[in-house]
Amino acid sequence: MQNFELTILGCSSATPTSKRNPTAQLLNIAERFFLIDCGEATQIQLRKFKLKFQRINHIFISHLHGDHYLGLLGLLSSMHLLGRTVEIHLYCPAELQEIIEVQFKHSQSYINYQIIYHPHQYLHNDLIFEDERVEVRTIVLNHRIPCCGFVFKEKPLMANISKEIIHQYGLSIDQILAIKKGADLVSDTGTVIPNAQLVVSMQAPRSYVYCSDTSYDERIIEYIKGANLLYHEATFLDEMSARAKETYHTTALQAGTMAKKAGVQQLMIGHYSARYKDLQPLLDEARSVFDNTILAIEGESTVVGH
Amino acid sequence: MQNFELTILGCSSATPTSKRNPTAQLLNIAERFFLIDCGEATQIQLRKFKLKFQRINHIFISHLHGDHYLGLLGLLSSMHLLGRTVEIHLYCPAELQEIIEVQFKHSQSYINYQIIYHPHQYLHNDLIFEDERVEVRTIVLNHRIPCCGFVFKEKPLMANISKEIIHQYGLSIDQILAIKKGADLVSDTGTVIPNAQLVVSMQAPRSYVYCSDTSYDERIIEYIKGANLLYHEATFLDEMSARAKETYHTTALQAGTMAKKAGVQQLMIGHYSARYKDLQPLLDEARSVFDNTILAIEGESTVVGH
Repeated sequence: MQNFELTILGCSSATPTSKRNPTAQLLNIAERFFLIDCGEATQIQLRKFKLKFQRINHIFISHLHGDHYLGLLGLLSSMHLLGRTVEIHLYCPAELQEIIEVQFKHSQSYINYQIIYHPHQYLHNDLIFEDERVEVRTIVLNHRIPCCGFVFKEKPLMANISKEIIHQYGLSIDQILAIKKGADLVSDTGTVIPNAQLVVSMQAPRSYVYCSDTSYDERIIEYIKGANLLYHEATFLDEMSARAKETYHTTALQAGTMAKKAGVQQLMIGHYSARYKDLQPLLDEARSVFDNTILAIEGESTVVGH
Repeated sequence: MQNFELTILGCSSATPTSKRNPTAQLLNIAERFFLIDCGEATQIQLRKFKLKFQRINHIFISHLHGDHYLGLLGLLSSMHLLGRTVEIHLYCPAELQEIIEVQFKHSQSYINYQIIYHPHQYLHNDLIFEDERVEVRTIVLNHRIPCCGFVFKEKPLMANISKEIIHQYGLSIDQILAIKKGADLVSDTGTVIPNAQLVVSMQAPRSYVYCSDTSYDERIIEYIKGANLLYHEATFLDEMSARAKETYHTTALQAGTMAKKAGVQQLMIGHYSARYKDLQPLLDEARSVFDNTILAIEGESTVVGH
């Protein structure tokens, strides 16, 4: 099975604490390393957890609140100072380009690699990245300023056929390709051998959904249905639901409800308000609605769909 | 004696390491808290070392390389989120205002206090801050982009006259004020009592000089002469003096030489290249020229002129 693993680099909301950094996540799908948001000190977290940041070629920024992008300039600069020449793709609000360029201009700095900007169109289900193994789509979130979530999804793998089966039925190249694509085998005598008896069972494509920052908004359910792992912000306990609504954030209870209604396999909550030193009450609250919930903890990795 | 204490928040050069953060220092002079440079994650360092950042009213930014200012936006935002209403003074390159404002604009954020900008004039000995206890002046450093160092100096304290002396000589208010300002006392019979016999000896005003980033440049000696504590960058060992020159930085040997030639009391070196895991060789090299040298170490505090 190919790698599909999420590592948390920062899990705090706007004001970091001495123990929790602002939002950043590293997602490894089949050795593609995607950085999701890049709060202040992300480069320091990457070093702390011994994650090689030059392997990151694609960075996804959800929105332009500082706790989701202020680490970007430092990371881009360090990538240059450490010899990067490979281009980097930035999926982000269009305005981020001005923010980056004004700083390079005033520091009279250049970087020795290209930044390729892919500005958000703020559309649901917009395909923003695709290669032979992975696709990434946007979800429009409901925040104080324009904000996108992301759906990272594996592509279906071609089925495998064992050597024994090939030999047993004397399969031709054309037959092998047809069976890999899902065809049954019809023998010379007209017997049908179902595809499932010929191929090694394929794993269903897995998906990871990132939703931060956002109000509780059921309009996104159709885009996240059945995800293997849903990261949903849970800034507050439900006793602060009025504050959550006012600041366009979500409570742990609402995050659990979203996971339940979308029928996901597992929920991870994060983006905790600095007021919560102990995260257990947030976890308990989400679990009261959706049992398979885990906490985003910095430095910890989670296999998607395990 | 009033407080005069420097705390190191970050001591790395451009690329931070897992153990060393980019440049930032907190200087407390008589309960004025001055932040000197503000590299990425400065707010996190302040929290880690339990230093209350709302007491900072004056921030001095030497230049616009990212490792000296990228923590500023996050700090300013957190100050706002935690309820600040008191204005903050920013002594900085003029272009920093555009960098800050473009980010507030695109994040659609406002802050609930005023930022008062004091753009550098890039002059030697330019008085940029003054109150009844402290004055701060600039030094023009020699870096790849415009850069200022800073001289923080106590003001002379008015001398004290003991009650016994006042009683013994029957001093009037006018006489007391004159003696406090340095006058001798001439008695009715014409006898002169020297000022030194009348006042409690005053401590000479102490000074702290911050020089980072810069090439070795003897033109600054006249402005830093006799400082109690000189912080001078020492990015490299002297075996890399060509690299130091090329990048407008200083070696530990050169920092020691500067301290010796300027006749300072104590030298602190910092802004270490990430290549040096062990700092002892840098310290040894500076000490080979100037014995009273210490290392900048994050979280450690040094009393100026102790």
